[in-house]
Amino acid sequence: MAAVLGGDLSVVVNTGDDFEHFGLAVSPDLDTVMYTLAGIANPETGWGISGETWNFLDLATRLGGPAWFRIGDRDLATHVLRSERLRRGERLTLITADLCRRLGIKAHILPMSDETVRTIVYTPEGALAFQEYFVRLRCEVAVTGFAFDGVERARPTAEVRAALQHPALAAIVICPSNPFVSIDPILAVPELRDLLRARNVPVVAVSPIIGGAAVKGPAAKMMRELGSEVSATAVAAYYRGLAHGVVIDEADAGLAAQIEAMEMAVRIVPTLMRSPVDRHDLALVCLDFARYLASGAAAQ
Amino acid sequence: MAAVLGGDLSVVVNTGDDFEHFGLAVSPDLDTVMYTLAGIANPETGWGISGETWNFLDLATRLGGPAWFRIGDRDLATHVLRSERLRRGERLTLITADLCRRLGIKAHILPMSDETVRTIVYTPEGALAFQEYFVRLRCEVAVTGFAFDGVERARPTAEVRAALQHPALAAIVICPSNPFVSIDPILAVPELRDLLRARNVPVVAVSPIIGGAAVKGPAAKMMRELGSEVSATAVAAYYRGLAHGVVIDEADAGLAAQIEAMEMAVRIVPTLMRSPVDRHDLALVCLDFARYLASGAAAQ
Repeated sequence: MAAVLGGDLSVVVNTGDDFEHFGLAVSPDLDTVMYTLAGIANPETGWGISGETWNFLDLATRLGGPAWFRIGDRDLATHVLRSERLRRGERLTLITADLCRRLGIKAHILPMSDETVRTIVYTPEGALAFQEYFVRLRCEVAVTGFAFDGVERARPTAEVRAALQHPALAAIVICPSNPFVSIDPILAVPELRDLLRARNVPVVAVSPIIGGAAVKGPAAKMMRELGSEVSATAVAAYYRGLAHGVVIDEADAGLAAQIEAMEMAVRIVPTLMRSPVDRHDLALVCLDFARYLASGAAAQ
Repeated sequence: MAAVLGGDLSVVVNTGDDFEHFGLAVSPDLDTVMYTLAGIANPETGWGISGETWNFLDLATRLGGPAWFRIGDRDLATHVLRSERLRRGERLTLITADLCRRLGIKAHILPMSDETVRTIVYTPEGALAFQEYFVRLRCEVAVTGFAFDGVERARPTAEVRAALQHPALAAIVICPSNPFVSIDPILAVPELRDLLRARNVPVVAVSPIIGGAAVKGPAAKMMRELGSEVSATAVAAYYRGLAHGVVIDEADAGLAAQIEAMEMAVRIVPTLMRSPVDRHDLALVCLDFARYLASGAAAQ
């Protein structure tokens, strides 16, 4: 999407994953988006920086520091600089914008809010901080629900509001990310869902579930554990009342009628992104779908 | 000295060089002593860790961070862990002890105090923080004097007191370090000079000036700028009333009478330490000299 839109793209990013580690402010989702758009992301791990080294962590572990969350030497620069600036009172949004500018990123990467929100994962054994669940326990425990600690005090930033109210805004795309822990924290920010609904712009959701499985991450496992069907239909139901259209994979073509019955339009295309070309194609599909929805053709 | 004495050695270290960098607590002198005794110091630079990498600093600089003080990837582990623990309210002394234990160091490395002291360097152009003078300006400006900001509120720690009052204490050695900015901050800690004087143990100073020049660092330059002669005699005069004996290099044998005239005993040996054997020999000389001074032979 960034390759298609450049500086016309704003990405509102979950900060519920954020946590303090080594006394530093770590924002895993912001960083993954930032490193990806800067072209320095590690494609093998899905997190961190390509060609990373681990000398900090090696000595830090020897000196008694925790090793379960792997912070690379380069990655650490982001956390150290961000932490220093946050401590000085700068807003996360402006720090992020500055880091992105220095990395040559044209798109606007916007934290969902500048207030602290922390995703809590409920399990039969008790509540866990998100990174404890996700990294330390590798999502191995069952989930029974989620909370977004602090979200009631959070507000959409001026920058998120401006992006959503921009006169040229043509589409809002809910990316094929984990609905429970990557999208829901954003939608839980007070006023944000209302801002989306109030804006007369098509909302297109892309299903992260293909053929009854998640492409990566624990989305499918979470759906099962929460008693949901694991399907693009269940994803669509999750975004009912918010999304006008749902993009599903060809493998799920048979589910289109179910989704349309929930009063959402459906676009059926290959959604598995294996290459830059796949990503480019899916971005164009989302934008074309939004144009189609905006034209009113969907209502005919 | 550590090789000779092992766990019987306590090293009281200047913390006037400490500063905040990248929002982290950096203690250059503590770290150099710690890395040296851990056998991981970089012998070429005289600071930092051997075989260091610089990936943190490379990205941090690209992201707008300062590059003038070179923090390596491994070195950063010390600063990050120390900063986190200081922020939690732990004492610098106990943090240092724990880091040393984990690095297998038997000697006790003791910060001169747990309170914040900052060496200020006065120059004709104004006052400078020590690292600004030492690293950023490479000691190129002239000095007119020094201050140790905060030292009036500092106190010797319980650990420094215990070391100085230990019944088995046999010698106090003032290392051949910079008298103005490495030794003086320690001696400026209220009560510390009195503790040294009250203790009936020989104080041996080793001259950092050999043949009218400093082995390394700006000691000789500072002496000239402050209007002092650059000589082992001037060093001895600096420690007059505190040191009972002064170790000087063979190149300065001709100065012995001047120093003895100031009522200090003199030991003349090769003091330039080029190898572990040189260091071992000089340590033995200091200990033997202290035994000699304690025996009362010096007064005969």
